[in-house]
Amino acid sequence: MKILVTGGAGFIGSNLSVTLMQNKPIAADKIVVIDNLSLGNIAFISELLTSPDFVFYQIDLLDFDNLLNIFTEHKFDLVWHLSANSDIRYGAKHTDWDLKQNTLVTYNLLECMRRTGTKKIIFASTSAIYGLAKIVPTPEDYGPLFPISLYGAGKLASEGLITAFCDNFEMQSWIFRFGNIVGKNGTHGALVDFIKKLRKNPDELEILGNGKQAKPYLHVTDCIDGMIFGFENVNDRVNYFNLACKGATPVDTLADTVIRHMNLTGVRKHYTGGEIGWVGDVSQVRLDHRKLERLGWSSRYTSDESVEKGVEELLLQIK
Amino acid sequence: MKILVTGGAGFIGSNLSVTLMQNKPIAADKIVVIDNLSLGNIAFISELLTSPDFVFYQIDLLDFDNLLNIFTEHKFDLVWHLSANSDIRYGAKHTDWDLKQNTLVTYNLLECMRRTGTKKIIFASTSAIYGLAKIVPTPEDYGPLFPISLYGAGKLASEGLITAFCDNFEMQSWIFRFGNIVGKNGTHGALVDFIKKLRKNPDELEILGNGKQAKPYLHVTDCIDGMIFGFENVNDRVNYFNLACKGATPVDTLADTVIRHMNLTGVRKHYTGGEIGWVGDVSQVRLDHRKLERLGWSSRYTSDESVEKGVEELLLQIK
Repeated sequence: MKILVTGGAGFIGSNLSVTLMQNKPIAADKIVVIDNLSLGNIAFISELLTSPDFVFYQIDLLDFDNLLNIFTEHKFDLVWHLSANSDIRYGAKHTDWDLKQNTLVTYNLLECMRRTGTKKIIFASTSAIYGLAKIVPTPEDYGPLFPISLYGAGKLASEGLITAFCDNFEMQSWIFRFGNIVGKNGTHGALVDFIKKLRKNPDELEILGNGKQAKPYLHVTDCIDGMIFGFENVNDRVNYFNLACKGATPVDTLADTVIRHMNLTGVRKHYTGGEIGWVGDVSQVRLDHRKLERLGWSSRYTSDESVEKGVEELLLQIK
Repeated sequence: MKILVTGGAGFIGSNLSVTLMQNKPIAADKIVVIDNLSLGNIAFISELLTSPDFVFYQIDLLDFDNLLNIFTEHKFDLVWHLSANSDIRYGAKHTDWDLKQNTLVTYNLLECMRRTGTKKIIFASTSAIYGLAKIVPTPEDYGPLFPISLYGAGKLASEGLITAFCDNFEMQSWIFRFGNIVGKNGTHGALVDFIKKLRKNPDELEILGNGKQAKPYLHVTDCIDGMIFGFENVNDRVNYFNLACKGATPVDTLADTVIRHMNLTGVRKHYTGGEIGWVGDVSQVRLDHRKLERLGWSSRYTSDESVEKGVEELLLQIK
C-alpha cells in the first residue's frame, strides 16, 4: 500500500510517519509525506529521509498543479490527511486562513484522489465541529453542528466535502474527531505555551481564562493507535469516530504539571479571566468515545497520564 | 433597514425582492440586489428597477473587491443570502462549482459584513445537509451531517462559517433549511424540466429514477413567509429551522400534474430507473417542521397544493 501523509512533518504527522515506517502497523510499501513546514519541522522526520521507501515533498497543498503531479506519480492507495491550520486563535484574526488551510486543502486532495483513482482517506477532524454542544459527553451523532471557531468551520466543511466525494465517486473515508493531543513533537497548545513561557520567565505564568477549562488530553501514541484501529476494523463508506481518553484535565492542572516537572517553586500564576481562553474556545469538552470502545479500542493513558507523559517529552525538546 | 438580497434576481430571490418592495412585510428603506444572472433573470425584477429605494448590481459574489465596495457604500443592516448554485447535478460534474458558488461566496459575504459592521444574516440552507438521514421526518438537531452531494457540502460549509462568524464577531443568523421550492420564476427542478420537455415533445416524457422519489414541495410564497416569520419572531444568536409543508409529492405525481394542466393525453412516460434521480439525490426527503409550527407558523399550502399552484404559474411563463 502506498500512503500519502499530509502534514507528515507536523506534530501528529511526524509521529505517524515514524510509526508507519518503523513499526509497520500497516503493510506499506511507500510513505510519502507532504508538508509546507509552516508548523511542521523536517527534524521530526530526519531519520526517515534516507529510506528508499520514504519520500518527502515540501509543497503547500494549495498548490493544486504540483499536488496533482505527486498524485499522478505515486498513485496512492490511501491519503492520511493531517495537514491543517491548528492554531485556532490565529484563524480568528485571519479569517481566510482556515478556509484555505482546512477547507480548500481538503478539496484539493479529494479532487486529486478523484482524478487519479485514490479511493481511501483517513481524516483528522475535531471536537470543535460540535461547537457549544448541549450533550456532554458529546456523541458522534450529535447535532446541530454549529462550530464557534473558524477552525471548527473548516473541519466541518472538510467532513462534508469528504462524505459528498465518497458518495459521488465511490470513495471510502475514516473520520476521527479528537480534541487536544499531547506528546513528543508538539508544536502548539497550552503545554507548549506554558513550557516556553516558564523557560523565559520561571517566576510567573500567564494562563488564558480562569484555568478551569477542562478537556480530554489524548497522548499522540494513543491518537495514532486509535486511528489505525478504526481504519483496520470498520469498513463502511463513511466511518466516523470520536477519539478520546478517560477523564479531562483542567488548564490549571496542566500548568501545575509543567511547574512540577520543571522543579519550579513560587511561580505566580496570572489568569486573564473568563470561562474561555479565547474567542472560539470551548471551555468544557467531553467526547463520548464509547463507539470505538464497543469495537474493542480504548486509549492506553488517561487524560492526566497523557499530560504527565506529554510534559516529560516536551521538556526534553523545548529548550 | 437596508437589506442586501443576494441572488435577488433568481427564483426565490426575485419573489422575495418583489415582496419586500411591494408588500413591505419588513420596514425596509432600501433593497439592494446582487445577482450574476447566471441562473437569475433581470426580467423577474424589472418592475423594481425604476424605484429610488431599489438598487441592482450585476456582479459575481466571488469578486470580493467589488462586493466590499458595495458593502462600504450601503452599510447594510441585514444580508438575505439566497445566492447559490442550485443545480445539484452540475456540481457533481464540476466539483469546484459548489465550493465556489456556495462556500466561498458565503465566506466573502461574512467577511464583508465583518469589515463593514453588518450584523445580521438570513441564510437559505437545505435539507441536503442531512444526507441520507436515518430519522425521517428529519429534525433540525439531526446528526451526523454527512451530505451526499457537493451542493449539500457547500451549504453545510456555509452554515459552519456563519455560526463561527456569529460567535467570533457578534453577528446574528437565521438559517432556514428547505428542500424543493416551486412557483413563479422557477428556473430549474423537476417541474421546469417536465414542462420544457413536454413543450418540445408532448408525446413522451423522460423521468429520472423510478418516479417514486418523494419530497415536500413548498410554494415560494410560503418559503418567503416562513423566513420572515422566523426572522421576526426568534432572536437567538443562531436561529435555525426546517422550512417545509405538510405532505410530500412523488415525482410521478409531478409529471401527472404537469400533463393534466397541459391537457395532454397518451403521454408515454419513460423512467431512467433506480431509486434516485441522479448521484447525490436523496430519494425520500421528509423534514420535521414542528419547530416553526410550535412558534406559530405553518405553510398555507400542502405539498400537492403547492405543486398544483406551481405548475399553473410556470405554464404561464415557460413557452
